[in-house]
Amino acid sequence: MAGEAKSKARAAAPRASARELLIDAAGAVMSEAQTIDVPLTDIAARADVNVALVSYYFGGKDGLLLALAKRDAKTALGELDRLLSLNIGPAEKLRRHLGGVIKTFFRYPYLYRLLAALMRDGTAENAREIAQFFAEPLAKTAKELMEAGIADGSIRKFEPGLFYMAALGACEQIFANRTILKVVHGIEDIDEDLQRRYANVVLEMLTRGYLTDPETRD
Amino acid sequence: MAGEAKSKARAAAPRASARELLIDAAGAVMSEAQTIDVPLTDIAARADVNVALVSYYFGGKDGLLLALAKRDAKTALGELDRLLSLNIGPAEKLRRHLGGVIKTFFRYPYLYRLLAALMRDGTAENAREIAQFFAEPLAKTAKELMEAGIADGSIRKFEPGLFYMAALGACEQIFANRTILKVVHGIEDIDEDLQRRYANVVLEMLTRGYLTDPETRD
Repeated sequence: MAGEAKSKARAAAPRASARELLIDAAGAVMSEAQTIDVPLTDIAARADVNVALVSYYFGGKDGLLLALAKRDAKTALGELDRLLSLNIGPAEKLRRHLGGVIKTFFRYPYLYRLLAALMRDGTAENAREIAQFFAEPLAKTAKELMEAGIADGSIRKFEPGLFYMAALGACEQIFANRTILKVVHGIEDIDEDLQRRYANVVLEMLTRGYLTDPETRD
Repeated sequence: MAGEAKSKARAAAPRASARELLIDAAGAVMSEAQTIDVPLTDIAARADVNVALVSYYFGGKDGLLLALAKRDAKTALGELDRLLSLNIGPAEKLRRHLGGVIKTFFRYPYLYRLLAALMRDGTAENAREIAQFFAEPLAKTAKELMEAGIADGSIRKFEPGLFYMAALGACEQIFANRTILKVVHGIEDIDEDLQRRYANVVLEMLTRGYLTDPETRD
């Protein structure tokens, strides 16, 4: 009965949903495998759709992965928009945004490597597309926050582009180098506790630096 | 005459030098090509030795690249040893070390991607070897500097491993993401001026943070 109801529901679903099923499956399979190098057949099997639909909807595997990156980026940029609308100063907005970046890479563990691989190995058009829908809006927002903070005196006078690149590097590092994490630190997986401790270290380091305040030193 | 003298000198050189020529050539070809994906034949041609010597000396391309990574790492670790012998406090040693990390990635533009690729795609043995000769000594030194700085009150109480990972991420980011640099910022190449500006931003950010000191704010 339940099986019959399920297949009826699937048969009755609008065609577009196979597209969403494939995108969801790609994210789930890459998250579990802890690598972006997963066979397309695994993704199709998880989505329970015919693998030929990948060509139909996305023109191939790269197109499917790009669609996944876009969906995740849209979620992250939507959260950034909500943050920007809050009535808090630019230095605090920047801190919360960088905390959000760490949360995004924790939530989508494949996203960093996926974006890097698509920009490095994909077509020049893919690279430009990713830059336009993700990297450029982020860089522009960060620059505006930096400039507002420099203007109101809450943020030091850094070159915004260079500062933001360095800050993102700090946010991403634990997610980008799983082998170092495993071989040097003996950590197999990033759990919620480690993610929170890392976020605390990164945000403290970025906002106040590693030097203690001279007046509190003995 | 000059050509004859040159080939005599080459013929008379001890056999071991072909090994060094290949290592030098691998570094030079990858630096110029701005990628680590260079054909072995280009490296052999640059070294002016038979490509078969790569198998003879290194057992294959991965072995040659590992030897190059080891040589560069040895140079960098030697500089770190000299730094540690200086009569300056731990916070200042840590600052100079992180500046040295940025200089190392500027001097060996292929090194970051090479280490990452060898650890990610190479054998588990390669990954362990790199961890042992490079990542572990670095992590151990950083931990000792942090602990000494926390003890003498000059460095905030961070978890040393997490702090150092985040700090390295900041140091490496500009070298790790050439596509973003090019597509988002329009920068084709990292010259000495950009390297210096980036080092200034990173070191200021890591030591003092992006927040201005409350007492200097108006």
